[in-house]
Amino acid sequence: MEQLFSDGIRNTPSSFIREILKVTESDEIISFAGGLPNPISFPTKDLNESANRVIQQYESKVFQYATTEGYEPLREYIANRYQEKYNLSYHKENILITTGSQQALDLLGKVLINKKDVLAIERPGYLGAIQAFSMYQPTFTGIDLENDGLNTNMLKDKLMQTKIKLLYTVPNFQNPTGITYSFEKREQICGLLSDCDTVLVEDDPYGDLRFEGENLPYIGANKLPNSVLLGSVSKIITPGFRLGWICTQNKDLMKHLVVAKQASDLHSNIFAQYVTHDYLTHNDIKSHIDKIRQLYKLQSSTMLQAMKQYFPESVKYTKPQGGMFMWASLPDGQSALDLFHRASEKNVAFVPGDPFYTDITNAPTFRLNYTNSNPEAIQEGIKRIASVM
Amino acid sequence: MEQLFSDGIRNTPSSFIREILKVTESDEIISFAGGLPNPISFPTKDLNESANRVIQQYESKVFQYATTEGYEPLREYIANRYQEKYNLSYHKENILITTGSQQALDLLGKVLINKKDVLAIERPGYLGAIQAFSMYQPTFTGIDLENDGLNTNMLKDKLMQTKIKLLYTVPNFQNPTGITYSFEKREQICGLLSDCDTVLVEDDPYGDLRFEGENLPYIGANKLPNSVLLGSVSKIITPGFRLGWICTQNKDLMKHLVVAKQASDLHSNIFAQYVTHDYLTHNDIKSHIDKIRQLYKLQSSTMLQAMKQYFPESVKYTKPQGGMFMWASLPDGQSALDLFHRASEKNVAFVPGDPFYTDITNAPTFRLNYTNSNPEAIQEGIKRIASVM
Repeated sequence: MEQLFSDGIRNTPSSFIREILKVTESDEIISFAGGLPNPISFPTKDLNESANRVIQQYESKVFQYATTEGYEPLREYIANRYQEKYNLSYHKENILITTGSQQALDLLGKVLINKKDVLAIERPGYLGAIQAFSMYQPTFTGIDLENDGLNTNMLKDKLMQTKIKLLYTVPNFQNPTGITYSFEKREQICGLLSDCDTVLVEDDPYGDLRFEGENLPYIGANKLPNSVLLGSVSKIITPGFRLGWICTQNKDLMKHLVVAKQASDLHSNIFAQYVTHDYLTHNDIKSHIDKIRQLYKLQSSTMLQAMKQYFPESVKYTKPQGGMFMWASLPDGQSALDLFHRASEKNVAFVPGDPFYTDITNAPTFRLNYTNSNPEAIQEGIKRIASVM
Repeated sequence: MEQLFSDGIRNTPSSFIREILKVTESDEIISFAGGLPNPISFPTKDLNESANRVIQQYESKVFQYATTEGYEPLREYIANRYQEKYNLSYHKENILITTGSQQALDLLGKVLINKKDVLAIERPGYLGAIQAFSMYQPTFTGIDLENDGLNTNMLKDKLMQTKIKLLYTVPNFQNPTGITYSFEKREQICGLLSDCDTVLVEDDPYGDLRFEGENLPYIGANKLPNSVLLGSVSKIITPGFRLGWICTQNKDLMKHLVVAKQASDLHSNIFAQYVTHDYLTHNDIKSHIDKIRQLYKLQSSTMLQAMKQYFPESVKYTKPQGGMFMWASLPDGQSALDLFHRASEKNVAFVPGDPFYTDITNAPTFRLNYTNSNPEAIQEGIKRIASVM
């Protein structure tokens, strides 16, 4: 029977996190495992008002088939926001609305990857990207992630050794580590890529969630011809709508992405696109995002304090300037998967490092999410993890 | 530069229909080209009420990340409806919610197709399926479509000659022809497939839109172990939500489809799933669908009458028992693409047959949609086409 299935799907790992979430569904469990935004950050009432308004204003139009590229005013809004915030000269033609930024990864895989093409990813890297790209059977090569971004010597060596089709990065508050690339590293990477065709993907779902330090320019957006920037409303408005986008100024790439999108789902939910655009244009999105930042800043600092108080000094961890995650490292030789099992018995969960690598198991590292637990639960959860270390 | 792109995307045709729709966007044009439901059939007010109700009832839950498989009560509702209407023993475990049934096609391609696997499709066949599957670089083999369904002798021969991975069918009111498979043909096809591993896909977006004759049992659903049934709310509630589903009792296939769905977009818009379920359980969906049927019956008979009145007798056409399309054939040797260009000058549009075949151009056939024009426009449009025949 197994020969019924494609090589692509047999090469694709199921999401370890979703498996873990099943184990941790009980209400008793304090879970740092998921990557969920805090539901108190959803503008439920305002979205309801927007839903009513767009139905009243546009009637059946919000329920009809729509263009593959996405709702024009929303694409324009997104382009203008990049213009204002980052001085990027994007226009609506450079924006394709996707069914969450997860779909953006799938579309990039569809359009760019032939079997055995070499893909460079951060090590550790976002498992959703590993999963999406795996379908297209690339050869992954990991570039070590340091506290200020990719190890650029390693990137340079790999670029010289082999033709790298695509480099996937999360430059702000990376998933899983919470690390942010420094200005210098960004410039270095841009320089290294300026001589080659490698497509640079900057996946930035958390960029708005900076609660410390200053915004930094993107690595290659609006600079490198094969540059792709991904965004999403999932972490600032709602993940339930599944709305994200791909920006690129490469017209050939955009043309192919649109065809791939047509073939994949025709277009993304148009009602959700109208509601999102209405919400963005009728509310003070800046102050809404500020509230989320304050919330996550408190949760982050609570977790850091608890780790300082309870974890042995031999356990190291990152100190994120924004986003949703921290990354802890046990002393060498210890397995975070073993710790996960012991922690589960204490009713506390996190994600062991393994699924964030394509080349190791029993990693000593693990990911902690702080956005979806209140400060008391954060304290208690860290204490429980510490008790089985 | 072109070598940047994958073989898969370079093998994928862009949607001819979407290109045509751009030509025919002017308000002056009478268009039989699209495949749009009539917007007056959308339950706009009821959907608005459902949106308000689910937000009030479930609050932030309708905006949070959700499970890949889909909203459980909706999956249960869909399974129960098949149970009641067709006596199929589906359960929620057999249902995966997809981002429109277009995504179901993409997921089937992901999970099943290796390069050069042989796929059998109806000839002519649904171009969205041709487009979705092309990404995975199969070898297409067409099975001629007769007035009562596939040419079963041809299917039998092909099954004996070669290993066919998948047979794609639209048994009710087929797109593009409007043809419905007879009971006998359904039984024959089921018999032919019972000896082999071939996955039978029954794509049934129009099944509820029967305005003449009796519902017929599915070909292989609930009978063949590798049977897959696709459904959608696009033609009975709203296409804008992009909600469809895959049903299969094959557990291995379902397991792989769920992983492919995770990798593709994590899950479909959960707000839309709540709203759809609320709408279905708070309204008389049967009487709503009855209204659509009456509307389309009138539009269909208006078009048939107009064709009888204006088209030369040498032009043949199908007489659908439901759905949204008719299929006309010019005398041999004439090109419907040429007719399309002449008709465009008269401000009337349809889809020439070419994109529904994988093996011919300048086909003498063309598709007419009748659901999105009022009776006066239908009469006038057909008259104009006739004037350039």
